[in-house]
Amino acid sequence: MLFDTFGTVVDWRGGIIREVSTFFSRHGIDSDAEQFADDWRQRYQPAMERIRSGERPFVRLDVLHLENLRDSLRNAGIDQGRFTDDELLDLNMAWHRLDPWPDSVEGLNLLRARFLIAPLSNGNISLLTNMAKRAGLPWDCILGAEVVRRYKPDPQCYLDTADVLGLQPAECVMVAAHNDDLAAAAAIGMHTAFVVRPHEHGPSQDQDLEATGPWDFICNDIVELGRLAGSAS
Amino acid sequence: MLFDTFGTVVDWRGGIIREVSTFFSRHGIDSDAEQFADDWRQRYQPAMERIRSGERPFVRLDVLHLENLRDSLRNAGIDQGRFTDDELLDLNMAWHRLDPWPDSVEGLNLLRARFLIAPLSNGNISLLTNMAKRAGLPWDCILGAEVVRRYKPDPQCYLDTADVLGLQPAECVMVAAHNDDLAAAAAIGMHTAFVVRPHEHGPSQDQDLEATGPWDFICNDIVELGRLAGSAS
Repeated sequence: MLFDTFGTVVDWRGGIIREVSTFFSRHGIDSDAEQFADDWRQRYQPAMERIRSGERPFVRLDVLHLENLRDSLRNAGIDQGRFTDDELLDLNMAWHRLDPWPDSVEGLNLLRARFLIAPLSNGNISLLTNMAKRAGLPWDCILGAEVVRRYKPDPQCYLDTADVLGLQPAECVMVAAHNDDLAAAAAIGMHTAFVVRPHEHGPSQDQDLEATGPWDFICNDIVELGRLAGSAS
Repeated sequence: MLFDTFGTVVDWRGGIIREVSTFFSRHGIDSDAEQFADDWRQRYQPAMERIRSGERPFVRLDVLHLENLRDSLRNAGIDQGRFTDDELLDLNMAWHRLDPWPDSVEGLNLLRARFLIAPLSNGNISLLTNMAKRAGLPWDCILGAEVVRRYKPDPQCYLDTADVLGLQPAECVMVAAHNDDLAAAAAIGMHTAFVVRPHEHGPSQDQDLEATGPWDFICNDIVELGRLAGSAS
């Protein structure tokens, strides 16, 4: 069972808002942390797209996050000269310190008793490892973009991950709160599980509020997935 | 803390002898399982050396183990026509089913409370993941040759692994029962811990019976390392 992580297992938006708020307070910056978090995240897909398209060689997500952080600071009119490199690197590590949704740890423990579980995330290995150690996510191994050097939803990212596990795609279940991630996994033959996360993007979320494809499992949280998948296997 | 696995954490020889014996019995083969296990393992370094030297592109250890198994069968005069591919693939998976030394799980749990712990093994990701799940090895993540596409003791294998973790080599400790592994890790700046495993190669072992370098820790098992490193950190 392979899990998308940002949004599906952890609350990236709440965590980034919290860390940005603290950072702004410490530096006496009067700027909107919610807006800043959303701006930082909006630069995520375009940055990966340059790599997916072949325009740029693979670099790990920590590198893209730091470049995007600098762009977001510039966009918000915040002078970067007031921060040391270490201060910016530490803020960039906020992505390593995201909290799980309330059901994630219990749900993953249920699933881990019957399945091999791993993230198939665009996060890099140290990001996912530090996150898991801090949050208590009981992964059997850490997979994802850095292992196969491809960003989702590149089809080869899913194919190569199954291959690393010595499995056929049909022996894998991709779990995500994002319909496009599941569509890409299904297209190469994986099973799919949709977890509804209606607050991932905040109170005014207008995407991924329901399943838009014929996914094998549709559930409200990972504990429910643990019960469904346990009885189906 | 990065761990060599075969010999340091798990008893590869005992496990392979056990699985080869069962395989030989099932197929009515009258051949020496101990000698066969040693022959299979002797082909390990030469097979990796072709990749380290650049003569051959990287392939994961499962591939080398299967090629070496076929060579060992040929060497023992055992006709491979009597086995199905699935039977040989299953015997090859014996490397995924090795038992830990009696102290390994307790020692790793001690260390995990204070450090990030991971294998830095020549084993591939699925081998190390299946081994950990079966044996209860509590790794924080699975690293090693397949992640960096280099076999130890290639110096770049250690350097790239530290880089994946976002660490300097001096922030890492390489743990191994093999002096040559520690020498390679120390040469690129890692700290080192030697665990004496006097029975890894059976009753007549004549190598790695003692530390031959100035390693930071020298201990008789991983529980002892857990106590030493815990008090030193």
